[in-house]
Amino acid sequence: MKTTQWIDLRSDTVTKPTAPMLESMMEASVGDDIFGEDPTVSLLESKVAQLFGKEAGIFCPSGTMTNQIAIKIHTQPGDEVICDQTAHIYHYEGGGVAYNAGVSLRMIAGNKGRFTATDVLDNINPDDIHFPKTSLISIENTSNKGGGSIWDIEEIKKIAQVAALNNLRMHLDGARVFNAVIESPYSTQALGKYFNTISVCLSKGLGAPVGSVLVGSHESVLKAKRVRKVLGGAMRQAGYLAAAGIYALDHHIDRLAEDHQRAKQLEEIFVTKPYVQEVLNAGTNIVVLKIDPKIDTNLLLSEWKEKGLLAVGFGKNQIRLVTHLDFTDEQLQKIKEIKLL
Amino acid sequence: MKTTQWIDLRSDTVTKPTAPMLESMMEASVGDDIFGEDPTVSLLESKVAQLFGKEAGIFCPSGTMTNQIAIKIHTQPGDEVICDQTAHIYHYEGGGVAYNAGVSLRMIAGNKGRFTATDVLDNINPDDIHFPKTSLISIENTSNKGGGSIWDIEEIKKIAQVAALNNLRMHLDGARVFNAVIESPYSTQALGKYFNTISVCLSKGLGAPVGSVLVGSHESVLKAKRVRKVLGGAMRQAGYLAAAGIYALDHHIDRLAEDHQRAKQLEEIFVTKPYVQEVLNAGTNIVVLKIDPKIDTNLLLSEWKEKGLLAVGFGKNQIRLVTHLDFTDEQLQKIKEIKLL
Amino acid sequence: MKTTQWIDLRSDTVTKPTAPMLESMMEASVGDDIFGEDPTVSLLESKVAQLFGKEAGIFCPSGTMTNQIAIKIHTQPGDEVICDQTAHIYHYEGGGVAYNAGVSLRMIAGNKGRFTATDVLDNINPDDIHFPKTSLISIENTSNKGGGSIWDIEEIKKIAQVAALNNLRMHLDGARVFNAVIESPYSTQALGKYFNTISVCLSKGLGAPVGSVLVGSHESVLKAKRVRKVLGGAMRQAGYLAAAGIYALDHHIDRLAEDHQRAKQLEEIFVTKPYVQEVLNAGTNIVVLKIDPKIDTNLLLSEWKEKGLLAVGFGKNQIRLVTHLDFTDEQLQKIKEIKLL
Amino acid sequence: MKTTQWIDLRSDTVTKPTAPMLESMMEASVGDDIFGEDPTVSLLESKVAQLFGKEAGIFCPSGTMTNQIAIKIHTQPGDEVICDQTAHIYHYEGGGVAYNAGVSLRMIAGNKGRFTATDVLDNINPDDIHFPKTSLISIENTSNKGGGSIWDIEEIKKIAQVAALNNLRMHLDGARVFNAVIESPYSTQALGKYFNTISVCLSKGLGAPVGSVLVGSHESVLKAKRVRKVLGGAMRQAGYLAAAGIYALDHHIDRLAEDHQRAKQLEEIFVTKPYVQEVLNAGTNIVVLKIDPKIDTNLLLSEWKEKGLLAVGFGKNQIRLVTHLDFTDEQLQKIKEIKLL
Repeated sequence: MKTTQWIDLRSDTVTKPTAPMLESMMEASVGDDIFGEDPTVSLLESKVAQLFGKEAGIFCPSGTMTNQIAIKIHTQPGDEVICDQTAHIYHYEGGGVAYNAGVSLRMIAGNKGRFTATDVLDNINPDDIHFPKTSLISIENTSNKGGGSIWDIEEIKKIAQVAALNNLRMHLDGARVFNAVIESPYSTQALGKYFNTISVCLSKGLGAPVGSVLVGSHESVLKAKRVRKVLGGAMRQAGYLAAAGIYALDHHIDRLAEDHQRAKQLEEIFVTKPYVQEVLNAGTNIVVLKIDPKIDTNLLLSEWKEKGLLAVGFGKNQIRLVTHLDFTDEQLQKIKEIKLL
Repeated sequence: MKTTQWIDLRSDTVTKPTAPMLESMMEASVGDDIFGEDPTVSLLESKVAQLFGKEAGIFCPSGTMTNQIAIKIHTQPGDEVICDQTAHIYHYEGGGVAYNAGVSLRMIAGNKGRFTATDVLDNINPDDIHFPKTSLISIENTSNKGGGSIWDIEEIKKIAQVAALNNLRMHLDGARVFNAVIESPYSTQALGKYFNTISVCLSKGLGAPVGSVLVGSHESVLKAKRVRKVLGGAMRQAGYLAAAGIYALDHHIDRLAEDHQRAKQLEEIFVTKPYVQEVLNAGTNIVVLKIDPKIDTNLLLSEWKEKGLLAVGFGKNQIRLVTHLDFTDEQLQKIKEIKLL
Repeated sequence: MKTTQWIDLRSDTVTKPTAPMLESMMEASVGDDIFGEDPTVSLLESKVAQLFGKEAGIFCPSGTMTNQIAIKIHTQPGDEVICDQTAHIYHYEGGGVAYNAGVSLRMIAGNKGRFTATDVLDNINPDDIHFPKTSLISIENTSNKGGGSIWDIEEIKKIAQVAALNNLRMHLDGARVFNAVIESPYSTQALGKYFNTISVCLSKGLGAPVGSVLVGSHESVLKAKRVRKVLGGAMRQAGYLAAAGIYALDHHIDRLAEDHQRAKQLEEIFVTKPYVQEVLNAGTNIVVLKIDPKIDTNLLLSEWKEKGLLAVGFGKNQIRLVTHLDFTDEQLQKIKEIKLL
Repeated sequence: MKTTQWIDLRSDTVTKPTAPMLESMMEASVGDDIFGEDPTVSLLESKVAQLFGKEAGIFCPSGTMTNQIAIKIHTQPGDEVICDQTAHIYHYEGGGVAYNAGVSLRMIAGNKGRFTATDVLDNINPDDIHFPKTSLISIENTSNKGGGSIWDIEEIKKIAQVAALNNLRMHLDGARVFNAVIESPYSTQALGKYFNTISVCLSKGLGAPVGSVLVGSHESVLKAKRVRKVLGGAMRQAGYLAAAGIYALDHHIDRLAEDHQRAKQLEEIFVTKPYVQEVLNAGTNIVVLKIDPKIDTNLLLSEWKEKGLLAVGFGKNQIRLVTHLDFTDEQLQKIKEIKLL
């Protein structure tokens, strides 16, 4: 079976640019962005900043980099960051929080990746040399390991109040923030005002090939530029990538609703399988299957692969499927038809 | 009330040298230990190494330093260490694991600070660039936040087997290792053989004024000497401190049984208090009181202090009392007599 | 004056893709490179590896990242790297050697950025805890701050022998390695064999928009993939950028001779200026002017800018001009004609 | 030959406490300094602070730790520190500046370890993401590798003015600051006012067995307490060591003049040796001999050792001799008498 025929639900990062997106890339005006002279990068940065009500933005090669930079600029080595125990910054960024920033994580056992203002209060360290200084709260919306769960803006508001009273900064890991916003009563700007920085990914649901933008105050972005340079993330004529991001923002936000709709249909398919004990789907583009522990998950994934369906293991006895721009109704139909173990 | 009259159960670190210990300090032969020429330091190091069946030792100003050095020499930046969620290396070392070694912690929700070989297996990361590389298991025996709980050597043996199969190293935080050993069927040497390095504290139950010794292979100790130097922990004529350690090893190990006995009696006193919901005492020198959440723990500690008893808050709604060399039967009697809230 | 009319000699990084390079980008096959599935990235990596006789390569967003990763994988925190005092890794990578790797630099006062095997021998630290452990030698060929100077392969060979005898690793910062090779009797493969890793830049003289490739052994590249991930340098459909790199390798190496020829002509123009005390040009694409200290260099640059010529200050009383793909004979003629102060 | 019979001029760190110093140690009142309750440590800290006109002090196990802490609290990872190329913080602290603080050094080629305000101005980086941010100036007085050279307070004043104008902090590595002060027209307080922090060593010329004190503002010392904790340098009943420091401050400062006098006499002895090309002695307690390169320095040191004289190699073709509390006129006479190669 050829790669192109696979139904690839491993991640929403696997998408390839559409023809018009590719066209917008190739027509991009570019310049040396390390000299601050790439007009397309600058346009993308200000566009994302504006969307979230922020002063400035900085384009980076990945969401890992935007998250890592945010953690770095909001902390000192030895500080502590409060996050959920399922957080992407802990599980999937190679230990970068300790590696890049020398910072510890205080991890809350939340509800599908979400915690409360009371949880935060309970986890702020007292001012004592034995304990790391708590300096940042990091929220992931939607939460990947929480099954694409969406945060309630009222809880975020309360957390922001706790943060303000305790001199903590707020970061939003917005890898899939548009998936949250289009299913919520809040706008990107309404959400943005509670955070010092927001990492916005272009290469997941939005379908751009590469990159994320970190938005925040002018001061934060100036600091971020230093960190991006030292990490090696400053690029020259990056406008080709930025152009795809601009196209994605203009054309691919609303259509996320389709991905969510298809995820619901996937839920319906898999909830009936005998080896599936529970399906997590929070109404966005992620479907997590809790597999009967008697079944070997890796074996199951191999058998699916032989039949053309790709998914990934997702912690012990779990499988994740993610819908995206390149996942079609036709493919959905095929999944219904093929006999999965 | 004068300090000297206080009944100080905040920690077993508050003890002062006895007259004969002080005398042994005064008579110590010393030299410049950075040139490797302090005979008393060398004697202490080999004495502790021998006790635990190791090739060599290195004397450091604190147990935090011996733990931090061990973590550093067994890991690379970006690696992950498996420990219990109550571990001292996480809670009381100022975020040093991330700060000094750039390393993340994978924390197990164990049983009073102790976990199993199965827990370890479940928490070893697969070899994938998204995940930190698991490289070390750290065990704390007795476990401080576990209420002085003692590890079963059979479980340690199983964990060591998992470690060997997965190319992981083993470190023992032995801040209170003698409290464990004197209550267990195992010897220091029998315990020692399962670990690559062991941090042995002299200034807790043993009653020496300053210092810990890290023991391990010659190679580990050579690496540790580099790290101790760079952290600023190499000292000149440290033999005065080492002499106290030698005295403590010769005279203060067996008497820990008295501390344990007095801790039991403390348990009996406090278990009857209406504001105490539960008392944790694992048979060693730590007593943890779970306080009724309706009571303000800090207020309670203040009132005790006014009556001459010092203890410390120990996480939410908890108080810790620790028995030690300077805590007498007379003081125990006094606690029975004074009216505590 | 419009940007596009400027004669921009600030750096060889300012070039924009040619039409056929852009076409090759547009036609690139791509995939998710974090899953290792971008065929164009893979092709680029093996192409560069082969050129330098190495087993494998890894594509990164910048030469700063490839250098930083190399330093990281060859050292432990606390180690020392031997380099010239003019090295790019010291001057232009934001302090990354200390920041990313916790490593010190032992800097040699060489000859236009080049040092000798004897210099290396004199700068290897003895095995003593006071001194950092010397573990890596980093060579920059051509040397940017050395005025584009070229290394003699015989000296590199001797240095490699010293490295082998002293258990040191060798890294080549090849930001402009093709500029050196086309003016030298040695091939890329002949040069490559003396180094454990080589950082090869695509976005300088070669004219690609973004990126560098680090080549080395399979083991080095595996380690590099972990570091690239944790720094946030792993990208998704990066094949668009890689395609430009492949095009550049196929079409833009030999033409560097033209840049070198034009640099010589620039030397001839500026050597006659009264405010120029000396011109450094080593036969490659960099021209460094030592300016009379009585002249304000920044003022001079401003006046040139008004007349359409862009260059950069380059340390105290120095100006650097760099020739490149977008610098034409017509522009050269214009510089002769316009009256520069 | 027995150790005690050696004439040990390797360092002023090799001294052993005098009988009255030892007596003061054994009579010390102590407490748990991590709870801030060791009265002798507190007294020492305030005594040193007062001497240098500072608000507070913090006692540490070594001068390496006080220097490393100072560098850490005055910088952010990625910053740059200006110092002389001979600085102890670069040569003898195990690469700690990069390891502990992630900071680079900008090293000036000064005059016997001393540089000028103009040198500083020339080495402050512009505000550009390519360059580390310059944030600290570190001065060593006397300069060890400068042969015990003394700084002129007028130059320090000018450097402090440059620092103030450029928002840089000032640190004094005062490992041998009393050797400088007793030979200079300035007082400790007059010197102290130009620095944010001063590291004062007790275990070199002053003859205490262990420790250094870092002095500065209350805020700096609060920050330093966090760093000392995380490095593992916080000690329990450290009053025994502190008492020796207090005794040394009260009795061993003025007598440094004797060490300086004896160093002059050593200079007179060695200046006549045929294998000595030059003797550096700046009027303090360090004598550096430049040895004829045809002579094997290690061999020379071995031969001296056989005859009872200990000294150390000090970079290429150099030997260092240091006078101190335990070096007597009788020993000086002996050196005159024994036939050294």
